[in-house]
Amino acid sequence: MIRLSVFYPTTDGATFDHDYYRTKHVPLACSAWGLDGAEIDKGVDGPYVAAVHFKFASPEALQSAMGSPKTGEVLADVANYTNIAPVLQTSEIVG
Amino acid sequence: MIRLSVFYPTTDGATFDHDYYRTKHVPLACSAWGLDGAEIDKGVDGPYVAAVHFKFASPEALQSAMGSPKTGEVLADVANYTNIAPVLQTSEIVG
Repeated sequence: MIRLSVFYPTTDGATFDHDYYRTKHVPLACSAWGLDGAEIDKGVDGPYVAAVHFKFASPEALQSAMGSPKTGEVLADVANYTNIAPVLQTSEIVG
Repeated sequence: MIRLSVFYPTTDGATFDHDYYRTKHVPLACSAWGLDGAEIDKGVDGPYVAAVHFKFASPEALQSAMGSPKTGEVLADVANYTNIAPVLQTSEIVG
């Protein structure tokens, strides 16, 4: 299983609409990539104001999702909830 | 639900024993904190070579775990698998 985590670092002047993120953006991403859901984090303490974790069955499934024509729509929606440049992490879930 | 994520940034000269982490350290932490399990990430692409995600029922449960006498033993074990200074993130799981 592959995890794609997207982190939003807390920075000076950063804005982040948690409600839009949870109710609009992450559902849009899940729909675009054929996922049942994702886990959404609202930062309490640490470097990130928010994060999301998507799970894919394989590296190929992740690659296919990223290459989907709908991914452009997902990326274009980012400006609707934040001015933060997200940090991406891909990992293999090993335990 | 509260997520405690621990990230290990990839840095020059960094060492990380993924097998020890998965089979010894994370089980030690789960045992110390009374958790059934945790999700362990082996980095594929992005800033982190490894990560773990623990879930706690509440901020109080997390605080109680961190204040447990067994937490010292967990922290002392870090030197057995890495020389990386971990980055901690606490978040509320909102979706």
